Amino acid sequence: MTEKATRLYPLPPLEIPADAIYEDLELSPTQRRDPSRPYVIINMVSSVDGKTAQEGKASPLGSQADRQSMRNLRSKADAVMVGASTVRAEKLSLGLDEAGQETQPLAVIVTGSGDVPLDKNLVVGERQEVLLVAPEGLTVRPGEHAILQLPAEQAGDIDLAEALKILRAEHAVDLLLVEGGPTLNYSLISDNLADELFLTLAPKLLGGAPDGALSIIKGPTQVARDVNLLTVHLASDELFLRYALS
Amino acid sequence: MTEKATRLYPLPPLEIPADAIYEDLELSPTQRRDPSRPYVIINMVSSVDGKTAQEGKASPLGSQADRQSMRNLRSKADAVMVGASTVRAEKLSLGLDEAGQETQPLAVIVTGSGDVPLDKNLVVGERQEVLLVAPEGLTVRPGEHAILQLPAEQAGDIDLAEALKILRAEHAVDLLLVEGGPTLNYSLISDNLADELFLTLAPKLLGGAPDGALSIIKGPTQVARDVNLLTVHLASDELFLRYALS
Repeated sequence: MTEKATRLYPLPPLEIPADAIYEDLELSPTQRRDPSRPYVIINMVSSVDGKTAQEGKASPLGSQADRQSMRNLRSKADAVMVGASTVRAEKLSLGLDEAGQETQPLAVIVTGSGDVPLDKNLVVGERQEVLLVAPEGLTVRPGEHAILQLPAEQAGDIDLAEALKILRAEHAVDLLLVEGGPTLNYSLISDNLADELFLTLAPKLLGGAPDGALSIIKGPTQVARDVNLLTVHLASDELFLRYALS
Repeated sequence: MTEKATRLYPLPPLEIPADAIYEDLELSPTQRRDPSRPYVIINMVSSVDGKTAQEGKASPLGSQADRQSMRNLRSKADAVMVGASTVRAEKLSLGLDEAGQETQPLAVIVTGSGDVPLDKNLVVGERQEVLLVAPEGLTVRPGEHAILQLPAEQAGDIDLAEALKILRAEHAVDLLLVEGGPTLNYSLISDNLADELFLTLAPKLLGGAPDGALSIIKGPTQVARDVNLLTVHLASDELFLRYALS
């Protein structure tokens, strides 16, 4: 793997080990817009042209340095959340893979349809708990896992603002890390529930058919949100960008 | 406008005026993969999530520093090429807008369908020539402009490799600047005809419906090309990335 990374911004440049990107970050901040919900950070990897999946999967996109930066963020998070489509796309873990890990973040899966192949695709670490979030009235088979069902105005709707409040109040989630997919990102950003975006820009061009190639945000309308650049790291040709959503 | 920009990479950081991004660039290089065609650079502006249009138009996306960096690239180019869909999307100029400009790049419009509202949407500078590139057999009304028609295997096909050779041999185009749209970018990249990508990452999140939100590259398959990061500039929260296509 790349041995060194450079923090390019803010200045002055700072050389660090490539596996230390985001390691020293102090999250979550004490000052917040809304202390009744967790501080919400989204972490994604995309190609330079904004595509988040290669042949349907995110896993071929990032480098080893990207995977380590993801683990560094997970190690600070009280919970890691994904949408069910991300679980359907490929086999994944939402935990920390180091042996002897004392604590694991809560794995939170959001589903509007109930179609979540947890047994097949979710690798659950020792000492890791799993919480399924679904609308009331939906028949879900959570297996051995816990489930949080919320009132829904329409079938498939999830009241994410309410879900976040419950995560804060009942599950002590102070820092929530969201890892997609694009529909969950859209809901959080358009509902003004996301505080930061961590985006790894893998040195690839992917393209693809618009209806087949996943992007960072997918929704019926454009969200049109301004963001502020906080930090830029570089490891080999891969850029690690951290933005605040204002 | 932003008064200062910083070249973050390569190190050491260098402060420059915000209107000087890419001004000192030496293009095109003497060493090339294929001297029989122009050196081809693509310049695009996108949101952080890879969308190249806000409400259907590219013009709201970039800052004044981005527009000046575009002019700096145009001032080095012998020709500026866009696809017809870019001309259909909004009113635009492919020239230099400074008064008293001695030379203007050749404006090249590529159309597979012949649907190009040149009179309505293309602002042609004084001393600027326009060349329409279209498949043979297509009825096109180029108006007062020149036209280059190329043999096509299928209706709507453009042999871009041949078009580039003719631009080099008959129009003395040594540096060709391409400004989209995504379908033209796809054709050039998948045919291995693009040498560099200049991408301005505007500090916005846009998202949108997959079939409605334009991206940098649009085509039937993924191109899956590795790129190398050459330079990173920053002006306010906007990043200017230059990549070489290997």
